Amino acid sequence: MNLRGVGVSPGIGHGPAYVMTVSVPEPPEGATYTGEADQEKERAMAALRQVAGELESRGNQAGGEAAEILKAQALMAEDPGLVVKMRTLIDRGLAAPRAVFEAFTKYRDVLAGSGGYLGERAADLNDIRDRVIAVLYGQAMPGLRGAPAEPYVLVARDLAPADTALLAKGQIAAFVTEEGGPTSHTAILARAMGVPAVVACRGATGIPNGVRVMADGTSGGVRVEPDESAVADAVSAARARQAALSSATGPGRTVDGHRVPLLANVGGPSELEAAVAAGAEGIGLYRTEFLFLDRAEPPSLEEQVRAYRAAVEAFPGGKVIVRTLDGGADKPLAFLPSSAAASAEPNPELGERGLRRLRRFPEVMDAQLSALAAVASEDLMVMAPMVATGEEAGWFARACRARGLTGVGVMIEIPSAALRARDLLASVDFVSIGTNDLAQYAFAADRRLGAVSTLQDPWQPALLDLVAMTLSAASEAGKPCGICGESAADPAMACVLVGLGASTLSMGAGALAAVRAALAAHTLAQCRLAADAARARTTAAEARAAARAHLPGLDHLGL
Amino acid sequence: MNLRGVGVSPGIGHGPAYVMTVSVPEPPEGATYTGEADQEKERAMAALRQVAGELESRGNQAGGEAAEILKAQALMAEDPGLVVKMRTLIDRGLAAPRAVFEAFTKYRDVLAGSGGYLGERAADLNDIRDRVIAVLYGQAMPGLRGAPAEPYVLVARDLAPADTALLAKGQIAAFVTEEGGPTSHTAILARAMGVPAVVACRGATGIPNGVRVMADGTSGGVRVEPDESAVADAVSAARARQAALSSATGPGRTVDGHRVPLLANVGGPSELEAAVAAGAEGIGLYRTEFLFLDRAEPPSLEEQVRAYRAAVEAFPGGKVIVRTLDGGADKPLAFLPSSAAASAEPNPELGERGLRRLRRFPEVMDAQLSALAAVASEDLMVMAPMVATGEEAGWFARACRARGLTGVGVMIEIPSAALRARDLLASVDFVSIGTNDLAQYAFAADRRLGAVSTLQDPWQPALLDLVAMTLSAASEAGKPCGICGESAADPAMACVLVGLGASTLSMGAGALAAVRAALAAHTLAQCRLAADAARARTTAAEARAAARAHLPGLDHLGL
Repeated sequence: MNLRGVGVSPGIGHGPAYVMTVSVPEPPEGATYTGEADQEKERAMAALRQVAGELESRGNQAGGEAAEILKAQALMAEDPGLVVKMRTLIDRGLAAPRAVFEAFTKYRDVLAGSGGYLGERAADLNDIRDRVIAVLYGQAMPGLRGAPAEPYVLVARDLAPADTALLAKGQIAAFVTEEGGPTSHTAILARAMGVPAVVACRGATGIPNGVRVMADGTSGGVRVEPDESAVADAVSAARARQAALSSATGPGRTVDGHRVPLLANVGGPSELEAAVAAGAEGIGLYRTEFLFLDRAEPPSLEEQVRAYRAAVEAFPGGKVIVRTLDGGADKPLAFLPSSAAASAEPNPELGERGLRRLRRFPEVMDAQLSALAAVASEDLMVMAPMVATGEEAGWFARACRARGLTGVGVMIEIPSAALRARDLLASVDFVSIGTNDLAQYAFAADRRLGAVSTLQDPWQPALLDLVAMTLSAASEAGKPCGICGESAADPAMACVLVGLGASTLSMGAGALAAVRAALAAHTLAQCRLAADAARARTTAAEARAAARAHLPGLDHLGL
Repeated sequence: MNLRGVGVSPGIGHGPAYVMTVSVPEPPEGATYTGEADQEKERAMAALRQVAGELESRGNQAGGEAAEILKAQALMAEDPGLVVKMRTLIDRGLAAPRAVFEAFTKYRDVLAGSGGYLGERAADLNDIRDRVIAVLYGQAMPGLRGAPAEPYVLVARDLAPADTALLAKGQIAAFVTEEGGPTSHTAILARAMGVPAVVACRGATGIPNGVRVMADGTSGGVRVEPDESAVADAVSAARARQAALSSATGPGRTVDGHRVPLLANVGGPSELEAAVAAGAEGIGLYRTEFLFLDRAEPPSLEEQVRAYRAAVEAFPGGKVIVRTLDGGADKPLAFLPSSAAASAEPNPELGERGLRRLRRFPEVMDAQLSALAAVASEDLMVMAPMVATGEEAGWFARACRARGLTGVGVMIEIPSAALRARDLLASVDFVSIGTNDLAQYAFAADRRLGAVSTLQDPWQPALLDLVAMTLSAASEAGKPCGICGESAADPAMACVLVGLGASTLSMGAGALAAVRAALAAHTLAQCRLAADAARARTTAAEARAAARAHLPGLDHLGL
């Protein structure tokens, strides 16, 4: 049997299937109880407490980011609003499991409606709810029980943070889930662990427990009971690809010697080491939200200087581009007065994000710029997020230069900024294209919304047009323009971007080897032909195929 | 004394000021009560009931749309969630007024977080809250008491539907408010009543009661105790402008005879008469949401045919462009299964709106297209909202042509559609630019969010670029391209759009006279020079000034 999903973490994984059973049924509508209301409430409360306790202790065991996530979930399980709702429903005669079910549903809808970060957490509530109901029904809690000793292919409807916090890398051969997309929890976790993963794979949970499965996290193919030779072929092909990729080393360049520094997108000090190990030549996007989110006080000058200096020191002689705080309604800053207006933004992605927010709270930006100036390294550059007009770019550039900063740039991630890149370039030293947000706005398609994900395809010709316009304006201005969106991590697209004139490419450290190899396998002329061919098409699929036809090295590399 | 705000409904209004006092103070934090909790709760409930009753009876008096709004508010005042919260707070020791204050704040935040239509209603809650607190404090309820007998200038912080439901046109000379913007309740009401209005006017509520005030709803100027000659001058200037505007009659054309049909944007059958009276030459945008929203069942074929035929018959020989249903997460369709996914969209404006939604529920679009085909008039044209790619345009065009419809078009309101207008035009007969949404996406700036409103300025050069790209693609394809966004209603911008090559302009009926006069005062060459001058600038203000310098007739017309 062969299944097909979306590969979200590359590589071949094979082993016995371990199918996670999450079979908590929906408690019947209108179910009632027989005893006293107070007893029924206590029963429900006890289940909530038990689940909260278990989540918290798993968090303590797991440590790190998972600990934070699980502790937040434990708090959610005992949220007062939820508890009041549940008790009211029991007062009205509903049995505890049904009351739990309805109270969570209500709570989830409120959370989902709040949008942004909280909205994304809404999905986690289903998992907490199922755990509470399982306790009330006396079932084993959803999760891993009796998994095989050898590395196994973990198959599930979807994976919640609580399921995965205690998984160890060596234990899992691959992930296969029925639900999820490229940015789901499963996908992010799998890439972080370096484990192959296939998501959105229909029929996966129908695989019998213990049957051998091979998952290809590149193609999205899942084979059930593959014959041994097929496994051997796939494994050796993957090894060959790995060998081919690692044969390209050193700085980024095309086969005919056109230099394109390959940089890393970095989300915090903990990711510096992996970026260096992967051969990044610097940092093309250093996100600074980690310094500001979930804090009662803004970071001190010393703390900021330390963080920025660590990045510069990790890449001697390499550029480090720090992006100023990209806060907004969906990334609330606890130390700023939360205005009713901000929390009420009906479309946070179209609201007061990034530079717009910093203009309202200039003291936050001033402190950040002062810290950057204090590092006093000429390899350190700074850029602002969410810039729409030349006027905004000018305002930011003046603020930076007033503090003695040189190397000032802005992100191009709003269509107006791409259309008028020349006006923005008049006051800054460089620009950097964020293709993810640029696609979101150019197609009016929410990055996180599965229903509009085809419009998020980086091969959409209109997106290529905006990228080309920006690169051509930068070239006319004689100023560098890099790419720091997900586009740069796709080896074929990386070649197209170089063909369009990108001066640097920045990506997650995991993508550097493949992009380095892809560039090393083609000439600049091939990259240009690929770019022209892609832009001449009218759909994303055609554009991709047309570009690849000019990039024969990709097939040889298995990319 | 002179004040300045934003003019949102044109004309000169003068008379004694009547300043609406809404001086319900915030009940002190932590205020407690002395008697029994149950008594305090009953006191609070009685106040809620009184306000709900008063809102409902005002609604019954007012009738029409105001009745619906006020009855919805009456329901809000007694919402169970609100009542439970308020009782809980009183149980915890808070005095009734403070408990009311906090419960409403909580409720408002939830509502605001839900986004879309409900989110917009959140502002109404402040008014209901103040009324309840006024009752608890034994104060006169906020609202109109002892207003002058002669027509007066109504001055307020902001106006709520409950304040204005019983106002009659002859009673009010002008509206002046401290808060609000061009799309606030006050602005919409004033335009509907044909009464001059100035909003966002700082210091307005400091005007003493009874003092004579003159408000200029065009310039936004507000003069306190103007001398009689100033009033006489302003009134005669306004009359002269009115006379100048009405001197231009007949079809839209430049002074050198370049024809540009002037069409109306129409939201339902009730607006047809006004459009005909204002001399519209047809309908450039017939919104069809009125047939679908707030209904348990979709409209029947007969009902749809009747509505479309009425529009065609209102404009014999004129084109009528019907836009298919633009539903989405913020305009829920009660007769469709509401999916959890849709209600959870974190950014409804970037979600499954317009054509995207119709593709998921093709039976709704099929029924609408069948009704349009049944009208069988060659003056009837059809276009789809929220089209991002050539592929989507092709899908819609095929569906229309399969039903025998000719005259098929799409809206250009997403940047990708403007960038790739040529690809869209390959499968349709015409396109129409919606400048409001196009600006929203091009600048990533929510249309309804005051904090980003400068980015919504239709004179932003990047928006002009997208409009110019679309018009030039249409011209190359030899197919018509109209404008149906708010841009077309600005007389100077209307000239620029004609200069860029717009084949028709469509706007609210109230704007037709001024646009007709503006076009009749200039040559096509002047319009082209104005367009070139605007696009050569880098800010909205400069673009506007540069264009107007080429359009001297505007000043003569007082536009």
